[in-house]
Amino acid sequence: MLICKVLKPLVSTNRIPGFEHKHLQVVLDGTSRKVAVDAVGCKPDDWVICVGSSAAREAAGSKSYPSDLTIVGIIDHWEPTAGSTS
Amino acid sequence: MLICKVLKPLVSTNRIPGFEHKHLQVVLDGTSRKVAVDAVGCKPDDWVICVGSSAAREAAGSKSYPSDLTIVGIIDHWEPTAGSTS
Amino acid sequence: MLICKVLKPLVSTNRIPGFEHKHLQVVLDGTSRKVAVDAVGCKPDDWVICVGSSAAREAAGSKSYPSDLTIVGIIDHWEPTAGSTS
Amino acid sequence: MLICKVLKPLVSTNRIPGFEHKHLQVVLDGTSRKVAVDAVGCKPDDWVICVGSSAAREAAGSKSYPSDLTIVGIIDHWEPTAGSTS
Amino acid sequence: MLICKVLKPLVSTNRIPGFEHKHLQVVLDGTSRKVAVDAVGCKPDDWVICVGSSAAREAAGSKSYPSDLTIVGIIDHWEPTAGSTS
Repeated sequence: MLICKVLKPLVSTNRIPGFEHKHLQVVLDGTSRKVAVDAVGCKPDDWVICVGSSAAREAAGSKSYPSDLTIVGIIDHWEPTAGSTS
Repeated sequence: MLICKVLKPLVSTNRIPGFEHKHLQVVLDGTSRKVAVDAVGCKPDDWVICVGSSAAREAAGSKSYPSDLTIVGIIDHWEPTAGSTS
Repeated sequence: MLICKVLKPLVSTNRIPGFEHKHLQVVLDGTSRKVAVDAVGCKPDDWVICVGSSAAREAAGSKSYPSDLTIVGIIDHWEPTAGSTS
Repeated sequence: MLICKVLKPLVSTNRIPGFEHKHLQVVLDGTSRKVAVDAVGCKPDDWVICVGSSAAREAAGSKSYPSDLTIVGIIDHWEPTAGSTS
Repeated sequence: MLICKVLKPLVSTNRIPGFEHKHLQVVLDGTSRKVAVDAVGCKPDDWVICVGSSAAREAAGSKSYPSDLTIVGIIDHWEPTAGSTS
């Protein structure tokens, strides 16, 4: 799983119905920004655990949910390494 | 999911029948160009959400569709970071 | 999907039976060489679309085919960016 | 599979129920830190084998377990290459 | 599929039962060392084809085998590019 920092919610009005009404968050993975489905209810600046691969689908609620990156946990305490974002 | 910029449609006359007639788009992921199946109807210069992994198949319409990157949403507002394409 | 350039066929006499007699091609993905199963019948110097992830299996013919990269289409016209191979 | 070094356990109180009570470990993959589910019982400084992709789920105990990186073995003897972490 | 060079067998006494008694090999993918399940019977210095993703499981013998990288063929002749390991 990846250790990412939550940046902000993402708004996408025109999206496939399969996403339902789940919240999408922009997260920082190292230096690249990605989009993750929020399964725990996190807020900007939280350090979170993101699961990818096929596990992201079940983590988002069902085997047919179209996610490849899902936030599955908020890390209690995290110290980013100096000069790094993870 | 990846945040990509749509560049242009891709034409591939000689392709496997499994792709059916869905539109393919060339998208920019950071600095590398990739091909994604268009499930929302986007146009060049749109910033879009692309899902990969096995989730790309169901997002493209069915569990047996041979996609590993599917455009699943158009982002309402996106500001690329300076000197970056995502 | 990746945009790759076909380099040459690959010969592997000692391989698992699951590969059957399908052709393998060495392709160039950016600057790294990979092996892809040829599902369309391509030739050296063709620019092709390669699908990865679990979709590569069905694209190669069946859900149990052991491929993680399958050539699924030949691109009609492709202009590589200057100084790049994709 | 990846060759990683175990750094320390990770505590995430607010996480999805699907993770159950399995231990999570922060591991070092080259120079980047990731989170892996511990299926063997390892301790900091162990060199371990981590499996990713969909295989991480069954390796963690069941096909529906939401892991994309699972520690599946402890390496008996490992010599990291000079100037590298793997 | 990746083109890798076999370095040496890997010994991991404490590993999950799911690995059974199959041989593990340390392989070189470009400049990074990885672990692959050997499905063909290779030896150090062989150039091999490694399959990843979910296809690695069936290539290793069954859909539930916990591999994400399996050696599926030995390349008859391979010339690494100058200054590169693949």
